[in-house]
Amino acid sequence: MRIAELSRESRVPIPTIKYYLREGLLPAGERTSPNQAQYDARHLRRLRLIRALIDIGGVPVAGVRELLDSIDAKGENLHRALGTATHATLTVADEGPPTPGQERARAQLDALAAARGWNSDNVRARQMIVNSLATLYDLGDDDLAALLPAYADSAASVAEIEVGLVSARPDIDSAVEGAVIGTVIGEQIWAGLRHLAQEHYSDRLNQTGRDDGEGCDDRPTP
Amino acid sequence: MRIAELSRESRVPIPTIKYYLREGLLPAGERTSPNQAQYDARHLRRLRLIRALIDIGGVPVAGVRELLDSIDAKGENLHRALGTATHATLTVADEGPPTPGQERARAQLDALAAARGWNSDNVRARQMIVNSLATLYDLGDDDLAALLPAYADSAASVAEIEVGLVSARPDIDSAVEGAVIGTVIGEQIWAGLRHLAQEHYSDRLNQTGRDDGEGCDDRPTP
Repeated sequence: MRIAELSRESRVPIPTIKYYLREGLLPAGERTSPNQAQYDARHLRRLRLIRALIDIGGVPVAGVRELLDSIDAKGENLHRALGTATHATLTVADEGPPTPGQERARAQLDALAAARGWNSDNVRARQMIVNSLATLYDLGDDDLAALLPAYADSAASVAEIEVGLVSARPDIDSAVEGAVIGTVIGEQIWAGLRHLAQEHYSDRLNQTGRDDGEGCDDRPTP
Repeated sequence: MRIAELSRESRVPIPTIKYYLREGLLPAGERTSPNQAQYDARHLRRLRLIRALIDIGGVPVAGVRELLDSIDAKGENLHRALGTATHATLTVADEGPPTPGQERARAQLDALAAARGWNSDNVRARQMIVNSLATLYDLGDDDLAALLPAYADSAASVAEIEVGLVSARPDIDSAVEGAVIGTVIGEQIWAGLRHLAQEHYSDRLNQTGRDDGEGCDDRPTP
């Protein structure tokens, strides 16, 4: 197909496709004349993947390149692909020396990881957790920080299923691709479902009389 | 304290603090002379909250304003605060007419929500899930899309604990604040933990001999 059809099929504007071609995210089509090229189903799929990472996952272009390189690498393995997925999707601010809150958070995470035998040396994921927990401590929200084990249970059950699923794929290349896509897209699905579930439980609490303020907007607050 | 001390304590540069003051995210300090103002612990806490939303949650400034307005609103309720948290943190691309993949995804989500009694009308969260699922269908990753119920189980167990926790707070204002902070920061903690757990399970699979390619990077791929 020509670029116009590729654009129609993918709903990606032609100038954007040309940008991805220039950036090397999308491989060149087969040239059929000096200013015309043909694209095929692989281009369409790759384009959908790029858009998914950017639009759904919010991955910056540099991160997309990292992820595509990981998917395309021959002999890539799951562990490395998962590390790349973290690196490309989690952004962690550059830090000075740790605050007391960060030291406390790190100790809490270390204890949790040790108890579960999680030996990952994924610096960025660890820093992300530490910074987030430390923020809760700094804000005085210790009750929220105490949810760490509950988050870990939930994350572990999802991760075990995900890893089992992608490693059951017939070859390592599609396992790696599934790991990258599943990590990025799955997080968004989980986040959206959590919002729906939070509203469900908040409404249910309200209906069962443990008043959360719904329906009495003008009552005085303490 | 003066602005210099506020900056030191919060690790936020003075120009950034002045920007938040101009934007009304941070309330003005108490003026003690024409070009000097005093700030207190409430300013420090608010500043930490703003930075947490931006740095950890990746929330844009407009979203931060929405969230702070929700936290500050008298008579706010949990349901509305949770809706605001979705609105401020989930970005969903503007859509044309639904694709076949999106129609299939919407039917799948509707069935899941009906089965669980999730009546939330949270348009943005629903659209986010539909777009993400549809992307998996479009990419041919139906095995990953089939994880929807597993994601829902995990998200539901987290949401139930979270909602129970914040609604146990002594007053509705702190419940609302906890819902907003917990929604934004908790998602990051969960995401970081999922990465650690994914690496754990991927390494464990590898060690038990179900080869995922780790350690044999030069083997030919099919």
